[in-house]
Amino acid sequence: MAEHYLDNSATTVTSDAAAKKALFMMTNEYGNPSSLHKKGLSAELEIEKAREIVASSLAVDSSDVYFTSGSTESNNTVVFGVAEAKKRTGKKVVTTAIEHSSTMEACKKLENDGYDVTYIAPDENGEITPFAFYDAVDSDTVLVCAMAVNNETGYVLDIERIAKMVKRKNPDVHFHCDGVQAYGKMVLKPKKWGVDSMCVSSHKVHGPKGVGALYIKKGARVLPLLYGGEQQKKVRPGTECAPLIASFAVAVSEFDIVKNAEHVRTLKDYMLTELEKIECVTINSRSDAIPYVLNISVKGIKSETMLHHLESDGIYVSSSSACAKGKRSYVLKALNLHDDLIDSSLRVSFSKYNVKEDVDAFLKSLKNGIDTLAKAK
Amino acid sequence: MAEHYLDNSATTVTSDAAAKKALFMMTNEYGNPSSLHKKGLSAELEIEKAREIVASSLAVDSSDVYFTSGSTESNNTVVFGVAEAKKRTGKKVVTTAIEHSSTMEACKKLENDGYDVTYIAPDENGEITPFAFYDAVDSDTVLVCAMAVNNETGYVLDIERIAKMVKRKNPDVHFHCDGVQAYGKMVLKPKKWGVDSMCVSSHKVHGPKGVGALYIKKGARVLPLLYGGEQQKKVRPGTECAPLIASFAVAVSEFDIVKNAEHVRTLKDYMLTELEKIECVTINSRSDAIPYVLNISVKGIKSETMLHHLESDGIYVSSSSACAKGKRSYVLKALNLHDDLIDSSLRVSFSKYNVKEDVDAFLKSLKNGIDTLAKAK
Repeated sequence: MAEHYLDNSATTVTSDAAAKKALFMMTNEYGNPSSLHKKGLSAELEIEKAREIVASSLAVDSSDVYFTSGSTESNNTVVFGVAEAKKRTGKKVVTTAIEHSSTMEACKKLENDGYDVTYIAPDENGEITPFAFYDAVDSDTVLVCAMAVNNETGYVLDIERIAKMVKRKNPDVHFHCDGVQAYGKMVLKPKKWGVDSMCVSSHKVHGPKGVGALYIKKGARVLPLLYGGEQQKKVRPGTECAPLIASFAVAVSEFDIVKNAEHVRTLKDYMLTELEKIECVTINSRSDAIPYVLNISVKGIKSETMLHHLESDGIYVSSSSACAKGKRSYVLKALNLHDDLIDSSLRVSFSKYNVKEDVDAFLKSLKNGIDTLAKAK
Repeated sequence: MAEHYLDNSATTVTSDAAAKKALFMMTNEYGNPSSLHKKGLSAELEIEKAREIVASSLAVDSSDVYFTSGSTESNNTVVFGVAEAKKRTGKKVVTTAIEHSSTMEACKKLENDGYDVTYIAPDENGEITPFAFYDAVDSDTVLVCAMAVNNETGYVLDIERIAKMVKRKNPDVHFHCDGVQAYGKMVLKPKKWGVDSMCVSSHKVHGPKGVGALYIKKGARVLPLLYGGEQQKKVRPGTECAPLIASFAVAVSEFDIVKNAEHVRTLKDYMLTELEKIECVTINSRSDAIPYVLNISVKGIKSETMLHHLESDGIYVSSSSACAKGKRSYVLKALNLHDDLIDSSLRVSFSKYNVKEDVDAFLKSLKNGIDTLAKAK
């Protein structure tokens, strides 16, 4: 059966060139980048080349880019590393109610440790404006975390303006941006925007799982999460996973932000046009969301039920409402969606590799599901 | 030029089968293991199969095995996670003066935070006996860390007896063992030995870089280092790097501890016999060290000088005395080696893939180096 993978916000296939690079590094350039001999040096050169490529994609200096095991580690590093570095300055943190769980849970841990954390909820228009950050930040605030694009709805935050408003209120705040769902999909310029740190992930952009990059502005104080060898200026010690890093850089060098966004927008617009003809479908994503993510609800059919119906036709999407424990999505909850909509929500997420046939297969299976599953109720 | 890689304690080549598994996972089984659809489930099944394989190699339950980004993360997780979990019980930690830097530096960080850390140095025989641990542990001790095999000399600690002595003195101590340099080279049975946690690394055993496993005994309290999603029972959240995990398990399934140790011992004994004929060579490793590591010094020739001479003949070894900052090896220092021996030390480290030709090439180049480099002085 043909596969139609429409769950690209969860993870992406590694591009052929990126995967081949990983294989080559594992079996040929396998030296330890810290070794003093040629075999180590050539692995180190691959890492530094990768650092340049990733830095260039973010318009920052390569000396400010660190490789981590992924964005859970990156977000945790910044949340805990900034809090500890500034513990004598203040104990207040500001973030949003729709952040990724790796920021959210790290902030909750800080709360347990006595920090005061504000989680800004979207307003009645579903927006989190720069003014909301301006209002939330005060002189005790040491850290502000905001994602560039929400993973469940594709909602885009205006990071450049948010950074400006935060710094206007308190220039000493460390402003961190989770760029994971924006990376490769829109232009990110953390340095120009006045962002102090930004993380991006490889496996969301057709690179391998297990590696991410963290930009930390020169001079910004972030204590390390890990202690050990002298790798990566001790900001992130441990033997660098050179194969993944080099592979990630291959995926980044394949970025074509404008062309891919146009391609994906065409697919999404086509899907939207067809979905709007189906009475029981509600569109949860805003019209100004990033085209790569489309969150919808199908009235009366639970997310999991539709998800498994779709997968039986080889179509893979997410049930944004579901998590391992069956809890409702805190993101959709924060957007004040009615429980019925949350419990029947589906996240369709595109990549540059998707084609019209994927959308057609999805629409056909969805319509079929609406007919048969609704009847079965 | 033929390559003779004798730096296997630094890192190893990924085996062909393991590398191919990673490639297959990246391009085919690329689903997010947390996704509810089949594409996610099949990635999850690969991870669980890998967990079984790694657990079996350590004779522990698979539900007690967690995958991390490597042993720097694993050692840090245990050092900080146990210290925090037991902060109301006591603030004393015991470890050795020859641990890997990821344990050492994490312990130093605890010292900075007010902990009392004892670093047990080898005795006049170069040994760290179980009695030394018995003496160091007291009622305030919450954590003891000891490596199974030293990375620079191959020195083997008697973990089973050390664990028993530690627990006899204070049964509430968390006993952690860094098994990285022992894994795949000797039988490790942490559960049977009464060890509370043990870490092992993929890239030292012909698996890929960027992944390791951490055994934590059921019921042992280790607070997580990272917060985020619900992966791995929240002990280690973050999207699992399924390709590396599955690849690591392939490498583990290729273990043949007895056969490989015999093969390597033959190579090492041959090298030793030949080295003993060379007057200016001193053997730093003990005769009862693991056969995979041989630390020597070449009188009058600095480590780096010989290392670069050897690499010009395609032979790769480590200068155990060197680090990025040109500091002397704290391990050899703790063994009370004279500075001249430390500054001229070389670490030769074998793997199952080495052959007699590698030893011959090393001996030929070393002798040639002794003749020409000594003359050049």
